[in-house]
Amino acid sequence: MNKNKIINDPLHGFIAIPSELIFDLISHPYFQRLRFIKQLGVSDFIYPGAVHTRFHHALGAMHLMGRTLESLRKKKIEISTEEFEASLIAILLHDIGHGPLSHSLEGILLPGVKHESISYLFMKSLNENFNDALDLALKIFRNSYPRKFFHQLVSSQLDIDRLDYLSRDSFFTGVMEGTIGIDRIVAMLTVHEDQLVVEEKGIFSIESFLHARRLMYWQVYLHKTAVSVERMMVNTMKRAQYLANANEKITASESLLFFLKGK
Amino acid sequence: MNKNKIINDPLHGFIAIPSELIFDLISHPYFQRLRFIKQLGVSDFIYPGAVHTRFHHALGAMHLMGRTLESLRKKKIEISTEEFEASLIAILLHDIGHGPLSHSLEGILLPGVKHESISYLFMKSLNENFNDALDLALKIFRNSYPRKFFHQLVSSQLDIDRLDYLSRDSFFTGVMEGTIGIDRIVAMLTVHEDQLVVEEKGIFSIESFLHARRLMYWQVYLHKTAVSVERMMVNTMKRAQYLANANEKITASESLLFFLKGK
Amino acid sequence: MNKNKIINDPLHGFIAIPSELIFDLISHPYFQRLRFIKQLGVSDFIYPGAVHTRFHHALGAMHLMGRTLESLRKKKIEISTEEFEASLIAILLHDIGHGPLSHSLEGILLPGVKHESISYLFMKSLNENFNDALDLALKIFRNSYPRKFFHQLVSSQLDIDRLDYLSRDSFFTGVMEGTIGIDRIVAMLTVHEDQLVVEEKGIFSIESFLHARRLMYWQVYLHKTAVSVERMMVNTMKRAQYLANANEKITASESLLFFLKGK
Amino acid sequence: MNKNKIINDPLHGFIAIPSELIFDLISHPYFQRLRFIKQLGVSDFIYPGAVHTRFHHALGAMHLMGRTLESLRKKKIEISTEEFEASLIAILLHDIGHGPLSHSLEGILLPGVKHESISYLFMKSLNENFNDALDLALKIFRNSYPRKFFHQLVSSQLDIDRLDYLSRDSFFTGVMEGTIGIDRIVAMLTVHEDQLVVEEKGIFSIESFLHARRLMYWQVYLHKTAVSVERMMVNTMKRAQYLANANEKITASESLLFFLKGK
Repeated sequence: MNKNKIINDPLHGFIAIPSELIFDLISHPYFQRLRFIKQLGVSDFIYPGAVHTRFHHALGAMHLMGRTLESLRKKKIEISTEEFEASLIAILLHDIGHGPLSHSLEGILLPGVKHESISYLFMKSLNENFNDALDLALKIFRNSYPRKFFHQLVSSQLDIDRLDYLSRDSFFTGVMEGTIGIDRIVAMLTVHEDQLVVEEKGIFSIESFLHARRLMYWQVYLHKTAVSVERMMVNTMKRAQYLANANEKITASESLLFFLKGK
Repeated sequence: MNKNKIINDPLHGFIAIPSELIFDLISHPYFQRLRFIKQLGVSDFIYPGAVHTRFHHALGAMHLMGRTLESLRKKKIEISTEEFEASLIAILLHDIGHGPLSHSLEGILLPGVKHESISYLFMKSLNENFNDALDLALKIFRNSYPRKFFHQLVSSQLDIDRLDYLSRDSFFTGVMEGTIGIDRIVAMLTVHEDQLVVEEKGIFSIESFLHARRLMYWQVYLHKTAVSVERMMVNTMKRAQYLANANEKITASESLLFFLKGK
Repeated sequence: MNKNKIINDPLHGFIAIPSELIFDLISHPYFQRLRFIKQLGVSDFIYPGAVHTRFHHALGAMHLMGRTLESLRKKKIEISTEEFEASLIAILLHDIGHGPLSHSLEGILLPGVKHESISYLFMKSLNENFNDALDLALKIFRNSYPRKFFHQLVSSQLDIDRLDYLSRDSFFTGVMEGTIGIDRIVAMLTVHEDQLVVEEKGIFSIESFLHARRLMYWQVYLHKTAVSVERMMVNTMKRAQYLANANEKITASESLLFFLKGK
Repeated sequence: MNKNKIINDPLHGFIAIPSELIFDLISHPYFQRLRFIKQLGVSDFIYPGAVHTRFHHALGAMHLMGRTLESLRKKKIEISTEEFEASLIAILLHDIGHGPLSHSLEGILLPGVKHESISYLFMKSLNENFNDALDLALKIFRNSYPRKFFHQLVSSQLDIDRLDYLSRDSFFTGVMEGTIGIDRIVAMLTVHEDQLVVEEKGIFSIESFLHARRLMYWQVYLHKTAVSVERMMVNTMKRAQYLANANEKITASESLLFFLKGK
């Protein structure tokens, strides 16, 4: 089977699947599940275009990671083939533990368990499936790999995750002011003593990025209607939990019932 | 309540809700249901961005209708306030009868019934709800209004419906070659003896539109993977129908069971 | 002659020429002269796309003024046909006095004379040519019209001039971070006691606008290379002035010589 | 001096200067001269945004060549570092021989001499300046290099030159219908027996490209006003030629006079 696929992304253009292993990970049901989880939860009540999925975001982040690493290589930062693939896998799977409606229901359905921990469990399970092929990706994800900048690209104040989701959320909501100059930020990133740093002349781009991020919080992520809808959803779930545990009949799928009743 | 809302659309920019009646129609559960129906059915299996909904398309088409009518007015075509609003309503509701997965399951769940007929039933029901406020919109929709160009804008070889969905599908799939010059086409439309016509110098734009449409058919609507997924879906439904009618236990919502068992 | 033209603008889409008078003003040699003056002076040394002209900017500003006034009318602000056209003329001609390389050479070729004063002279001259048809536009331009918001739209901290040039300069330089949400800002403008004000919920858009403006200053308008090139140009002119007044032979057009020798 | 520059392009994003040699070629007065030649001659009379230069187009074409070669490498086509750089140089300089107003005045000022021949002379002269560093680029440009696909990328029915200028002209004129899917076409190009070929599934993209090209011819390149302006310009030059040769006094720069008098 030809696993050398390219995927259309209205935001980044063409996304090439860079290896067979990554193709197989994307094809795995754990990852395909993300097709059914919206990136912005209930925000499409306010911004009807914002129905894009975590599946799409994860592919986009993987693509941006590839572009960033290629840019670093041009600056003579040594990055091995294994490190390249592992970083792409780490960012591809960083959000694989998200459940329905993501952050909103996280605290309700599995109290005390963060999606990062579930992502980690998924990744460990995939690693077994794929005969330890994800060892290095797991190290990068858990920040136990000595070259810190790989983890910092996956998760830090200026990580690839944010670059993709801010652009993507701005694109699909149509909130133009959230546009960030991804190309420029990527070009400004570099590595010093294995730490991710920004070139001096990139400071305005970073400031713009922070400004865009703040704007997206006020205008999208914390939009009063979205917050209200979320609150109603949470309260509905709490009520359902109460009824389910009181053995009242409620109409819900078996999986939901399982979670509502807790362990 | 302030019903003077604007909605962000990454494709068209800002969509203003032009009247209270239209605000109330959009708020109605019949219309809100379209939030849950993807415009392109299963095409997001191939194009992950293509998760946009019929809800969004209907709003976009309404917006384009408004712009088109304003352009016609500037060309001294008389359009009354009533005709203006009725045309917007007709296009807003033209697809309200679509069911899940739209065209794919249409023939299975309600054999012999076209979505246009269901749209008509929905509109008649809404008309009753709204004290005959939709009388003129219904006439335009059913092509019984003497000024034919209103109906032609809602449904013809070069209608507003197509202008919106071709652009929207091209935008969300990221298939750049499907881009059409909406502004120019709208500017080229005019009316002669109450029939919709195109200005002579608009011929290249129309040709481009036809070319883009054909390309979208080959590259998106009839993509071999989408067609296969659709076929599998239809066969699954047929099998479920058989089992449901044979009174085998199948896991399905009550509404789906109702349809599977037929009347 | 058909004066009902539309002009393509890659930034705003289609720009319609709204009246015969405006068509005639645009056709006038005074205005056509702006075709040969780059909006950003020497910035195309750094940003090769930034060769857009003051002609294009003036048309764009006129178009945005039209959209803004239409938006205000929808908010029930009374704007007469005369006020509408006069505002468009005022903004169309607000920069007509700019000379070659604009700000850079202003102080050299005509010391002590601001381009605004020259714009005013041009407008007065055009007003005579057009039999006082620009009376109201001149009042708005000079801020002697009682309804102050018209002048504020032409020239203030948040005027249409800035909305167009910031967007246009960001578009043609490719400095994405300078993108501003024009549609949203326009939608947020309103009028209170004949003063231009911003709706409360527009505050983030205004903040974004200010941020984008500041970024454009640092990244484009005050770019160190542009400032250096400008300085070299000014010094070259000063030397030419010295030589011209010392009656040394210098190669220059007759018009330039006239200005170099001063009065 | 740091020659590792990146240039903003509103069309392609960031263009990196890939080598010191290329930096030096771009800095050379022969190449800088292209800053003052508009890509579309007099078309900005119709499309005011179309003031982009041959300088910008040449940089864009070089950038696209780089992306195409990288895509071919990923398909296991061997391309040496020397071939890579030489191809970029060949396309960078392919139009360096263009004179003012390009095609329009070509036949008047230097009758019987094509701009391709002048480009060749420029390149030979640069090659001497740069100690034969352009040998391979010249071979590719003149189609004397055995691996034909390099020349075909520089000049053929589906060359990189066209990909860039069609997109660029569509972008700066604002003629949306001329948009082509560059990313997809680049991804569809491959090499068979050292000849440039297109993958089978790329056929729709090629068809779209041809359609867009034809549309650009009708709507832009052969626009009746542009053709008229050009004709007036040519006739003016012919008259000037006549007067110059009759030793009448005409106001023109020395260089223009030199060409007008011809031999």
